[in-house]
Amino acid sequence: MKDYISIKPWKIVEDGFHPENSKISESIFSIGNGRMGQRGNFEETYSGLSLRGSYIAGIYYPDKTRVGWWKNGYPEYFAKVLNSVNWSSIEISIDGTEIDLAKHTPLHFRRELDMQAGVLNREFTVKLADKTIRAKTQRFCSMHRKNLGVIRYSLTAEEDCTIHIKSGLNGDVRNQDANYDEFFWQNTKADFHEQPIAWLSQETRKTNFGVYALCQHKWNSGMAAVKSNGTNHELYAGMEYEFRLKAGETLNFDKYSIILSDLYVKREDFANQGIREINEAYQAGFETLKDEQYSAWKAIWKNCDIEIEGDESAQQAIRFNIFQLFQTYTGDDARLNIGPKGFTGEKYGGSTYWDTEAYCIPFYLGTASPEVARNLLLYRYQQLPKAIENAEKLGFKNGAALYPMVTMNGEECHNEWEITFEEIHRNGAIAYAIYDYIRYTGDEDYMASNGLEVLIGIARFWAQRVNWSNDKKKFVMLGVTGPNEFENNVNNNWYTNYIAAWCMRYAAEQYNKLSKATSKRLLEIKAKTELDSSEVEQWLNIQSNMYFPFDAERNVFLQHDGFLDKELIPVSELPSSQRPIVEHWSWDRILRSCYIKQADVLQGFYFFEDDFDMEVHRRHFDFYEPFTVHESSLSPCIHSILANKIGNREKAYEFYLRTARLDLNDINNDTCDGCHITSMAGTWMTISKGFAGIRVRNEKLHLNPALPEKWHSIRFQLRFRENLFGIQIKNRSISVQNLEGPDSTIACYGQEFKVLKDHHIHIE
Amino acid sequence: MKDYISIKPWKIVEDGFHPENSKISESIFSIGNGRMGQRGNFEETYSGLSLRGSYIAGIYYPDKTRVGWWKNGYPEYFAKVLNSVNWSSIEISIDGTEIDLAKHTPLHFRRELDMQAGVLNREFTVKLADKTIRAKTQRFCSMHRKNLGVIRYSLTAEEDCTIHIKSGLNGDVRNQDANYDEFFWQNTKADFHEQPIAWLSQETRKTNFGVYALCQHKWNSGMAAVKSNGTNHELYAGMEYEFRLKAGETLNFDKYSIILSDLYVKREDFANQGIREINEAYQAGFETLKDEQYSAWKAIWKNCDIEIEGDESAQQAIRFNIFQLFQTYTGDDARLNIGPKGFTGEKYGGSTYWDTEAYCIPFYLGTASPEVARNLLLYRYQQLPKAIENAEKLGFKNGAALYPMVTMNGEECHNEWEITFEEIHRNGAIAYAIYDYIRYTGDEDYMASNGLEVLIGIARFWAQRVNWSNDKKKFVMLGVTGPNEFENNVNNNWYTNYIAAWCMRYAAEQYNKLSKATSKRLLEIKAKTELDSSEVEQWLNIQSNMYFPFDAERNVFLQHDGFLDKELIPVSELPSSQRPIVEHWSWDRILRSCYIKQADVLQGFYFFEDDFDMEVHRRHFDFYEPFTVHESSLSPCIHSILANKIGNREKAYEFYLRTARLDLNDINNDTCDGCHITSMAGTWMTISKGFAGIRVRNEKLHLNPALPEKWHSIRFQLRFRENLFGIQIKNRSISVQNLEGPDSTIACYGQEFKVLKDHHIHIE
Repeated sequence: MKDYISIKPWKIVEDGFHPENSKISESIFSIGNGRMGQRGNFEETYSGLSLRGSYIAGIYYPDKTRVGWWKNGYPEYFAKVLNSVNWSSIEISIDGTEIDLAKHTPLHFRRELDMQAGVLNREFTVKLADKTIRAKTQRFCSMHRKNLGVIRYSLTAEEDCTIHIKSGLNGDVRNQDANYDEFFWQNTKADFHEQPIAWLSQETRKTNFGVYALCQHKWNSGMAAVKSNGTNHELYAGMEYEFRLKAGETLNFDKYSIILSDLYVKREDFANQGIREINEAYQAGFETLKDEQYSAWKAIWKNCDIEIEGDESAQQAIRFNIFQLFQTYTGDDARLNIGPKGFTGEKYGGSTYWDTEAYCIPFYLGTASPEVARNLLLYRYQQLPKAIENAEKLGFKNGAALYPMVTMNGEECHNEWEITFEEIHRNGAIAYAIYDYIRYTGDEDYMASNGLEVLIGIARFWAQRVNWSNDKKKFVMLGVTGPNEFENNVNNNWYTNYIAAWCMRYAAEQYNKLSKATSKRLLEIKAKTELDSSEVEQWLNIQSNMYFPFDAERNVFLQHDGFLDKELIPVSELPSSQRPIVEHWSWDRILRSCYIKQADVLQGFYFFEDDFDMEVHRRHFDFYEPFTVHESSLSPCIHSILANKIGNREKAYEFYLRTARLDLNDINNDTCDGCHITSMAGTWMTISKGFAGIRVRNEKLHLNPALPEKWHSIRFQLRFRENLFGIQIKNRSISVQNLEGPDSTIACYGQEFKVLKDHHIHIE
Repeated sequence: MKDYISIKPWKIVEDGFHPENSKISESIFSIGNGRMGQRGNFEETYSGLSLRGSYIAGIYYPDKTRVGWWKNGYPEYFAKVLNSVNWSSIEISIDGTEIDLAKHTPLHFRRELDMQAGVLNREFTVKLADKTIRAKTQRFCSMHRKNLGVIRYSLTAEEDCTIHIKSGLNGDVRNQDANYDEFFWQNTKADFHEQPIAWLSQETRKTNFGVYALCQHKWNSGMAAVKSNGTNHELYAGMEYEFRLKAGETLNFDKYSIILSDLYVKREDFANQGIREINEAYQAGFETLKDEQYSAWKAIWKNCDIEIEGDESAQQAIRFNIFQLFQTYTGDDARLNIGPKGFTGEKYGGSTYWDTEAYCIPFYLGTASPEVARNLLLYRYQQLPKAIENAEKLGFKNGAALYPMVTMNGEECHNEWEITFEEIHRNGAIAYAIYDYIRYTGDEDYMASNGLEVLIGIARFWAQRVNWSNDKKKFVMLGVTGPNEFENNVNNNWYTNYIAAWCMRYAAEQYNKLSKATSKRLLEIKAKTELDSSEVEQWLNIQSNMYFPFDAERNVFLQHDGFLDKELIPVSELPSSQRPIVEHWSWDRILRSCYIKQADVLQGFYFFEDDFDMEVHRRHFDFYEPFTVHESSLSPCIHSILANKIGNREKAYEFYLRTARLDLNDINNDTCDGCHITSMAGTWMTISKGFAGIRVRNEKLHLNPALPEKWHSIRFQLRFRENLFGIQIKNRSISVQNLEGPDSTIACYGQEFKVLKDHHIHIE
C-alpha cells in the first residue's frame, strides 16, 4: 500500500521525486494507443531502479519454457510480451555532465499523466555542472496516428551552457524475464535514409515478426544546432546534436518516432510508408499532433467517462482504470487481445486469459461500439482450430475444443499442470461471453456466423471431460482447478460443473433453435463439425444429470467435494502477519486451508444470478465471503457487485476501493511489474453492474442503483444496442438521457420508462 | 525391452558390438565400491553415444533449481550426483590413428562384467592403420583399497606397429543434466609430483568438497617406452608414452588411480596420503590387486548370494541386482546413502529417497551385518534437525519433522509441490524402518539412543498435519500424494492415513514403554524435545479417531476419497499403444484415470500385513491389481510378494521377472540414464519375502516358501541377529544350516525347529 500519488479528477500526479517507487511509477505512468505502448521510463538516462519497456501489439516471442519436471502435454514455449525497439530515449548532457536523476537529485520534480489529453508530462529542475536546468517533457502515443510516438523535451538553463543530445533508435533491448537470458531479436539493421532520418529494422527470432522504426528530430526555430552528426551500428541509429543555450532561453527538442510492424505493413513497404509517416508527423509539428491526441481522447471519453461526485479518490481511480483499458485495447483488430499487464510490463507474458471474456468484454460492450467486443469474440473464433488441437494434445477427440489458459496465437503456453490442464473453466467463460455479447448487442446473427461453432467445440469438450460415476449415479468432473486457484486438482468444483452444464445446455438450445430454421449456414456447420443430433441429446442428458456438491445442513453448494473437511476459520482470524498467504504459506498449506483466492462459487452466482433467488445469494455470500482472501486482483469486483445486490453497501464500497485503486496505491505490492489491466474492467463493472445495478433483461436495459453513502452522484455514458445513454444517478433520483439512437425503453427498479430520441427522463 | 545381454550365472555379457545400446551398456556395466563408481565407459576415445560419468560418494553439487512458476516453500537447489575427475580414460593411437570404435567398427567385441570377481572385462579386435589390433581391458574399483581404481589395458598387434598412449586425470568434466550448463568445479590444479605421478585437485563450487586424484602407470617388464613425457594444464595432468610393438607381442599397460575426497582425508594430507597409496598400489601390481578384489567380493557374496536352480535368467538377474547394490553402498559410513541410480548415472540427483527405508534396509538387514542398516538409520537420525527445519519452512511447529523427499544433506531439494510438500508418506517409511530394524536385529537399545527422537518428530508432524473434520467427525488428512504418484493432492490417502496413525501409535507406545523404565536417557529426550505426556495422549487420540476411506459395498479400503468416482476400466483393456501412460497421456488424464503407478493401498498391506487376514489381502489385491500399471520400478516387487502371499504364484513370478531384469532387458526403456539401484533391493525382497516367505515373528525367523514352478531350488545365506543361516529351498524340502552364531530356532510353515550351532535341519 503506497500513498504518494496526488488525487486529481483527471490527472495522475507524482509531486516530488520518489526514486524508491520508480518502478511502480513507471507502470502507473505508462502510455499506449492500443497499437503500441510503453512504461513511463524517463527519456534521459536513469541509472536508478527501472524496468525499461516498449511494446508493440501482437509482437511476441515464444521463449523456451523453463520447467523443473516435465509433464506430458506441457507446451514448449511461453509467449513473452516483447520488449522492442527503444524509441523514447533522449540522452542529455549539460557541459559534459549527463542528466541522470539517480545521480543528481532534482530540486523539483513533478510527473503528471493527463488522462483527458492522453499525454504524459514531467518537469524537473536539476543542478549539475554548476548549471541549473529546468526540464519539461511531454510524451504520447498518438491515438490518431497509430504508428506515431511523440516527445517534446524542453530545456531552460539559468546560466549559459552547452547541451549535448543523443537521440535515436536502440534495438539492443532485452526482456528481464527471459528464461535463458536470450536476446529475442535478430537481423537488426540500423542506418539513415538521409540524415537526420534514422531507421532501424529487426525481426523476432523464431516468430519472425518484422519491426521497422524511424525517428526524426526538430527544435524551435530560434535555435541552431552547432554540431550534428549521425552514428549507427548494428543495433542503433541516431543523431547527436549540440546546442548553445543562453541563460533563460528554452530549447524545445521534439522527437517523432514511427513504429511499423508487419502485422499491418508489408515489409517491402516499410521504408516508403515509414518515410511518408515520419514526414507527415514532422510537417504537422508537435502542437498539431498534441491537439489531435486531445481530440481523439475526447471522442473516447465521450462514450466511457464516469463522473463521481463526492469522492475524488474514487473519481481519479475509475478514470485511471478506463484510461488504461483504452490505452491497451481499442478493438479494431481481432488478432489482438488484452494482456493482464497490457503495455505496462513483462509479467505474465501471453496476451489472453479468461480475464478477457469474464471482465473485459462487459466493459467494452458498455463503453465502445459493438465491433470492439465482437473482435474479441472473433479472436477466439479464429483460434478455434488451435483450441481443438490443444484438446487433442490432451487426449480429447472429435472436435472437442479446449481454449488455452494463456495464449498469443491460440496455442497454450502456460505450463503448470494444475492450471494448464485443469483450470478448464476458462472454456465456460468463452461460451458465456458469446451469450453475453448477443444479449447485450442483440446481434443474433453472430450465433450462426461464428458463435455456434465455438459452442459446439466447447460442449464437446465438457461432454468428454465428465465421466459417469457409478458411485454417485451422476456425471462428475474429476481433477479440476476452479477460479479459486488456491485449490488444485479437486473433484466436482461447483462453478466448473455448473458452467459446463450451462455450456452444454446453451449449445444444445442454440443448435436446436437454428435447426428449426434449417438455414444453409446450419448445414455448413453440421458438415464442418460432423455434429448430429444424438450428440446434442447427449449434452442435454449430461447437463441434466450433472452432479453438484451440496451441503444439506447449511443449504449451500460446496466449492468442491471435500470442502467441508477443511477447518473453517474465517479470514478475520488470520493474523495480518500471515497475509497475503501466498507470500507467507507454503503451497500445500494454502491448498488444504479453506481460504479462497478469488470468487469461485460466487463467480457462478455472478454469471447465473437469475438461477438463484436473493435468499440463496445472501446465504452463499455469507458462507463464502468470510473465507475469501482476494489475493487475485479479479476477486474484489465480483464480491462488490454481489454485496451490492444483497444490499450490503458497506462491503460493496470496501471492495470497490480495493479494486479501483489497486495500482494507484500499489495495494498488492506488485505494481512495479506492471498495472493490473484486466482487473480494471472489473472496477468498471463494480460501478456499472454494482452501484448502478445495470442488467439486460428482456432485451432492455435495467437500472437498479444503490450508491455508496459518500457519493453524491455518478454520471456516465453507456452504450446499449443502438443507443448511447447519458445516465446520472443521485441518491434519490435517476435521470437518463437518450444521447444517440432511436426511442428506447429502459427499466429502473423494475419499472419501465420510455426514453425518446434526444430526450431524457428523470425519476425521483 | 532389449535382449542383447547373454545369460550366464555369474556374468553379464555383451557378445558382439551394440553401439545403438551403448548408453544402456554403460549403465549395466557400471562398477563401484561404495566409495566411488563409474559408468562402463570405454577407456579409449569413443565418439558414439555415451554418457561419461565417474562419481564419488557423498560429493554433490547444489545446482540452482529450474522451475517455471515458483511456489512458496520450494528449495533453492537440487543436489546433483556429481560427475567428477575422469581417471579411466586411456587414449590410444596405432601408427597415428586413434582407436575409436564409433569410427572403426570392431571385428570382434565382447564385454563382460564378472560379478564374482568384481571386474569389468572387455576384449575387441579392430583393424586400423592397416594393423589388426587385439585389445583386452580389465577394470575395477577396489573393494579392498577404497580409494583405488585399477585398469589393465592389453594390446596385441598382428603386425609391427607404434602405439601412442595418453593417459591421465581430466578435471574438465560436466554434468549433462546441469540446469544452467554451469561447470560445477573450481580451483582445479593439475601437475606432477615427480613425473610420472600426475595429480589433480579440484573442489566443488558452493559446497567446496575437495577432491584429489593421482595416477601412475606401469607396463610389462619386457616392454620399453620409446618416448615418455608429461603434459599438464589447468584441468589436466597426464603422461604420453610411445611403444614399439612387434607382431604377436602384448603390451600390458596398467593404470593405477587414487581418488581422495575431504570427506575422508584432510586436505593437508591429500598429497602425502595420495602418494603413499599410489605407491602401494604400484608396488602391489595388477595381479595382486585383482586377487584382493576377488577376495573382497568373495567375502561379500558369502553372506548375500542367492543361487537359483532351474532358471539361469533369474539367476543372473538376482546376482546382478545384489552386485549393484553392494557396489553402491557398503554401509560403513552413516553420511552416505543409496541414490536411485547409485554410481550409474546422473538422473534423479540427490541421494536419498524413501526407497532406502522401504526397500534397501530390508536387503541390507538380510545380507550384511546390522551396522549397515544401522548406519542408514543414523543417516536420518543425524538429519533430524534439518527435517525439523524443513517442516518449519512449511509452517509446522514445535519440533515436528518432515524428512525430505530427495536429499543429500538433510535439506529438501525436490521442487514439485505435489511431491515435495504432499508426498509426505515418506515420513512413515522412515519410522517403519526403525521398527523393522529393531524387529530384525533385536537391537532394542537403538530406540532409546536414537529411534525415539526421530519417532517424536514424525509423530508431531502427523499430529499437526491432520485436522478434525466436523463433517466426518474424524481426523482427516487433506492434500497429499500417496505412493501412487498418478494421483496428486488427494484427501485421505488410505496408505498415508494408515501409516500416520501407526506412527503416532508406535511413537506413543515406545515413549510409554521407555517411561516405565524412567531412564536417564528418557529424561534427556524429554528435555531435548520438550515432550510431555499430554502430547503423547493426543497422538493416541488422533490415531484412534483417524478416518480411513472405505467402500462398504465392495468391502475394500479406498485409495483416497473419491476413488470410486473414477471410471474403473482394468489395465488389460488399455491398448498397448497407450502404454506406458506416462509417455502417452497428459498429466490431467493420468490423474483422473483409475490407473495406479505403484502399489499404494497394497504397499500398506505389505507393511502391515498382520493387521489384515488373508481374505482381506486377497480382496484388496484383486481390487487394485487390475488398475496398477507399475510405471514405477518400485511396484512389481510389492505385487510379487503379495501375490505369493495369497497363493497366486503365476503373478508372483511374472512380477519377479519384471523387477529382476528391469535393467538387463531395459524394460522401462530408461536404463540409458542409469540402473534402478534402489528397486534392485525390491528384487531381493521378492525372493526372500516372496518366494522364500521370510518373516520375523515373535523374535524368530519364519519361512513360508513357495517357489515358481520353473525353479528347482534356491539356496541363499541370510543374516538374522547373531546367526548366519544357509537356506536351501526345494519344491518339497527346506534345509537350514546354522553357519554362524549360537543355537537358534526358526519356523517353517508355522512349525518351529531348533537349529543347533554348526548343524543343519532338513524338512520335507
